Amino acid sequence: MEKINLARKFSLINDYWNPRIAGELNGQMVKLVKFKGPFVWHYHDNEDELFYVVKGRFDMEFRDKTVRVNAGEFIIVPRGVEHRPNAEKEVDVLLFEPATTLNTGNITNELTLETLKPI
Amino acid sequence: MEKINLARKFSLINDYWNPRIAGELNGQMVKLVKFKGPFVWHYHDNEDELFYVVKGRFDMEFRDKTVRVNAGEFIIVPRGVEHRPNAEKEVDVLLFEPATTLNTGNITNELTLETLKPI
Repeated sequence: MEKINLARKFSLINDYWNPRIAGELNGQMVKLVKFKGPFVWHYHDNEDELFYVVKGRFDMEFRDKTVRVNAGEFIIVPRGVEHRPNAEKEVDVLLFEPATTLNTGNITNELTLETLKPI
Repeated sequence: MEKINLARKFSLINDYWNPRIAGELNGQMVKLVKFKGPFVWHYHDNEDELFYVVKGRFDMEFRDKTVRVNAGEFIIVPRGVEHRPNAEKEVDVLLFEPATTLNTGNITNELTLETLKPI
């Protein structure tokens, strides 16, 4: 039982859209990821996702609205809902989602990651 | 899909050891709670728990060691591990845990809460 310091972990991340595993509990994972720019539109058939902003801000785009998520705020995207994270500047984000979640959901492209590394 | 601002939610909480439900996903709950003083020693048979400090700090006491958890840090307590949160001063804590988790685990006393309210 060791604690995890988010700022320290994020200082080790030098790329974007590449979530690292920072913890696991109850079949769920805590992942740390930096966003920059727009991601790909996608949804998850079976997983709800939580996005918590540790530093910076990003826009969670839905087909019918956009929600600006700032540091100290989180948003939960329910399964089946199409979404696209879009960050004007670099943003540090904590994800909480099932271990089975594929980053690009129903889409497979050059951003898709089949395996994630711990941090 | 609305975002949740943690500072705003914590400003609505005026008591201790009384988690509020701030979100739900994949059968897990996001709970917000203020700690102050020592809690009760307990464990959870079937649930791992994550404690993330939003503001302040507290000590997570185990039978063989104590881990100081500061703002911006989290700790995961695996199922079956006896623990006692102890906060010298008021601290704002976000919990991730299964919806079924009873706050006092294997113990039932005056701190036990059978139902939680949303916030």
